[in-house]
Amino acid sequence: MRATVYEGNKTFKVIEKEIEQPGANEVRIKVAYSGVCGTDVHIYHGMMDKRVAMPQTIGHEMSGTIDAVGADVSGYVVGDKVVVRPLDDTKVKPSDKGFNHICEELNFIGIDSPGSMQQYWNVPAFVLHKLKENTDLKLAALIEPLSVATHDVRLSGLVKGETAVVLGGGPIGLLVAMVAKEVGAQVIISEVNPVRIAKAKALGFDAVSPIDVDLVDYVHGKTEGRKADVVFEVAGVQPALDVMTEVAGIRGRIVMVAIHGQKKEIDLFKFFWKELKLIGARVYEKEDYEKSIALITANELPFEEMITDVQPLSNIQQVFENIDKNPDGLKVLMDCQL
Amino acid sequence: MRATVYEGNKTFKVIEKEIEQPGANEVRIKVAYSGVCGTDVHIYHGMMDKRVAMPQTIGHEMSGTIDAVGADVSGYVVGDKVVVRPLDDTKVKPSDKGFNHICEELNFIGIDSPGSMQQYWNVPAFVLHKLKENTDLKLAALIEPLSVATHDVRLSGLVKGETAVVLGGGPIGLLVAMVAKEVGAQVIISEVNPVRIAKAKALGFDAVSPIDVDLVDYVHGKTEGRKADVVFEVAGVQPALDVMTEVAGIRGRIVMVAIHGQKKEIDLFKFFWKELKLIGARVYEKEDYEKSIALITANELPFEEMITDVQPLSNIQQVFENIDKNPDGLKVLMDCQL
Repeated sequence: MRATVYEGNKTFKVIEKEIEQPGANEVRIKVAYSGVCGTDVHIYHGMMDKRVAMPQTIGHEMSGTIDAVGADVSGYVVGDKVVVRPLDDTKVKPSDKGFNHICEELNFIGIDSPGSMQQYWNVPAFVLHKLKENTDLKLAALIEPLSVATHDVRLSGLVKGETAVVLGGGPIGLLVAMVAKEVGAQVIISEVNPVRIAKAKALGFDAVSPIDVDLVDYVHGKTEGRKADVVFEVAGVQPALDVMTEVAGIRGRIVMVAIHGQKKEIDLFKFFWKELKLIGARVYEKEDYEKSIALITANELPFEEMITDVQPLSNIQQVFENIDKNPDGLKVLMDCQL
Repeated sequence: MRATVYEGNKTFKVIEKEIEQPGANEVRIKVAYSGVCGTDVHIYHGMMDKRVAMPQTIGHEMSGTIDAVGADVSGYVVGDKVVVRPLDDTKVKPSDKGFNHICEELNFIGIDSPGSMQQYWNVPAFVLHKLKENTDLKLAALIEPLSVATHDVRLSGLVKGETAVVLGGGPIGLLVAMVAKEVGAQVIISEVNPVRIAKAKALGFDAVSPIDVDLVDYVHGKTEGRKADVVFEVAGVQPALDVMTEVAGIRGRIVMVAIHGQKKEIDLFKFFWKELKLIGARVYEKEDYEKSIALITANELPFEEMITDVQPLSNIQQVFENIDKNPDGLKVLMDCQL
């Protein structure tokens, strides 16, 4: 079988290796598609070399079919379409208070252990979610990032009739916007890249550049002065952190979706004055996956528009190099059978 | 009657003026005690000169008795013991979403309009809360700051069996600690001033200096590794902001009680990693006052220990000068009949 490994120094290798039998409580998945996550790009850039044991097969946004079933696995048969919720929480402790998805000793499969950017992948059965037979496996590769969005929106408590401002119109920002709109909220996307603004508009969103318009005035005008009930900070840059506390209305909730590696300056006075809430959100829980699977199965949202490129797995090096060169693209999938 | 006015330049004056009749929908209160709030000290320091129309009578932590009742006021008679919830929300708008206590055009009585540091005080009847006849009016002057604490604890969602860490053992920190303990939480106070640590210990609290012990290790050891379920940031200094995200356990809630006038550095990565929540809290709502009145009426908590000095109103200048010189004191009341 064909597999890929990250070797450090911005280098992936395509290798041939034996197909392995799944162990007890494991299944072997024939991987269909494996999407490239922002985290994979961070790994490629060497930002996570301390965490990733090289050479390592990475990848965690995927879809596939069961290819073999190990001992003691029930509920799955060969041919089942599945996705993986890549959180191995077997080392959960009482001090994790039942929040297994972010437990202190979480093993994130595809970062901390081998991932999906290979033709066949053995995983414990407890990370599987079964899909309906007619599910489009390309779209199903979006279930993992979509679950980040369903988690973010659920933790925000966003309800119908509220206004959500999404700071950043990249892949996760657009998925958050779609889920927020599906909830029944008014959604406004703030994004600086004109290609992404055009894409967001083509998807039916109200999207503006905070360089061209005063975002706070704009949202004020669209909400009869209430401003944002919920702000999703997906941009990860200081101007977004500066505007998030301005654009939020009284008792606004700000969901921190972006990952800020360094300490950042925050206007805590605004948190006091308007009784704002900042909500940290990381990965997803089982119910977020179930919500995402239902959305992908229903296929009523413009998910296909999210996939801007599909490349053979064997092109992995070129795929990562191109992502660096092309900030306009959204989700790139690798076809793991090619 | 005797009144005091803040005139700017760290100066209060004691003046004589006519007792005024209450207007329609107003009452005249014979003020018993008026406590000095941190905000009053900020005013004294000139930090709020842009907001305070000088010469201005300030003060908003008080107790008293009804002295006269204006036209169209029902439910109050002369002699009733009362406290004022000093929030005039008559300019509330739909964009305030029903959060009247922090409405955009809130008039904070005692800052934005005349306050309680005088012998008689006319206020609209809608800001009154009636007290039981046997209520101690000295303790009743603590109802306003105690309501800050009951509000903070309510917004935190703290429940019995959880662990609360209070950063800062000043007057508000101690009141927060008392309310948290009353809820049934394990409370740990972090404070650097040895006199305040001794006071907190004398009140029965587990209190430590983060200079002498590693606070995170200490809390870890006291919670079997769970760390804090709730952190109250009452210190208002950068080291507290640095430790708050460390000492909070998974899904910990951090209540921002301190007022940070400048943007501050925050570890947003910890918010992401542990799914922390930051909760901005300002003043109080009606139900927080009712809770505080019940606590003061029951008088089962060591509220008397909070009052470290009572001075005649006519000593106001000296009172504020002494507060600057004595960082060990807790609550200073002014006896407004002297």
